Amino acid sequence: MSALSESALAQLFTNARTHNAWLETPVSDDTLHRLYELVKWGPTAANTCPVRLVFVKSAEAKARLKPCLSAGNQDKSMIAPATVILAWDNEFYEYMPKLFPHNPDARSWYVGKEKSIYENAFRNSSLQGGYFILAARALGLDCGPMSGFNATKLNAEFFPDGKWQANFLCNIGYGNHAELFPRSPRLDFDEASKSI
Amino acid sequence: MSALSESALAQLFTNARTHNAWLETPVSDDTLHRLYELVKWGPTAANTCPVRLVFVKSAEAKARLKPCLSAGNQDKSMIAPATVILAWDNEFYEYMPKLFPHNPDARSWYVGKEKSIYENAFRNSSLQGGYFILAARALGLDCGPMSGFNATKLNAEFFPDGKWQANFLCNIGYGNHAELFPRSPRLDFDEASKSI
Repeated sequence: MSALSESALAQLFTNARTHNAWLETPVSDDTLHRLYELVKWGPTAANTCPVRLVFVKSAEAKARLKPCLSAGNQDKSMIAPATVILAWDNEFYEYMPKLFPHNPDARSWYVGKEKSIYENAFRNSSLQGGYFILAARALGLDCGPMSGFNATKLNAEFFPDGKWQANFLCNIGYGNHAELFPRSPRLDFDEASKSI
Repeated sequence: MSALSESALAQLFTNARTHNAWLETPVSDDTLHRLYELVKWGPTAANTCPVRLVFVKSAEAKARLKPCLSAGNQDKSMIAPATVILAWDNEFYEYMPKLFPHNPDARSWYVGKEKSIYENAFRNSSLQGGYFILAARALGLDCGPMSGFNATKLNAEFFPDGKWQANFLCNIGYGNHAELFPRSPRLDFDEASKSI
């Protein structure tokens, strides 16, 4: 397999930016389905696939979301075509008979084990969050991920039965490139990596 | 921005597989640098960039790694051109003056706050793990991510000062496509997502 083209690498990584200002162009439900059909293939531990996606699009649902957001995240999220709640399923193991069919015992690796459930769900739904952001960019969408929200309030509003739990949020749509902030620095290879 | 080509989407998502058998083709240090130079651009909360990558390549380093791995992960990791320890930095906030230069107070959002440090480092280094896997695939590499290892033992061996901490591992190289397992199912859109 060879490397993707420079323009594809630019779209995914080197030229992609976090967006805070959004054009009015909507994101269709077809595009959301196409996005999920990419995200789902990314690998997770024991194929547990714990991420859950809530695409908040309607005016009614946006109004429920608004008071859960930090002040600085409210206006832009009301304008974005969709704010996605990336959550995890605290009962992800109930799908193991479907997801890990070659081992009928897989469910028992997790059920009743609070620490394993939490660590697996947090790690792997975050990993799937990485797949989500890059899959959206691969489809030509822009992303604005956010951690600034009141999780207790948001979970009570959207997940009152406690089964799903918010991890982070991400606005998606078509960003207004004229309103990008200057790009922040990153760590050098030797600050963040070593080869031994 | 338009969607990437079907062949690029296949290389990243729809046709990409987790590999357990590896060709002898090595992965050069140039490729590892190129990989990091993609991964580093993925967004993280407040640009904290907490992931740290240890590329375990030499026979000596592989021998130190082997007893830390679950039995089923040992042989394949000894054969893979590199086993990458995806870790996080418990003192990631020390880089905030570099990474978040427009707010000189950013370091104080985390320092001394154990729960915020843990949650930010775990969430965002996992998110960067997603960028890592897709960046490797974008460069034509294959991946074999693994959670089966003794974290206490591995951290003691590779990170004795406790500053860095392992999150998960990933073999990289060029996989032997003839030895792939059958692909496991995924959840349908309606099982994992909703639009409201």
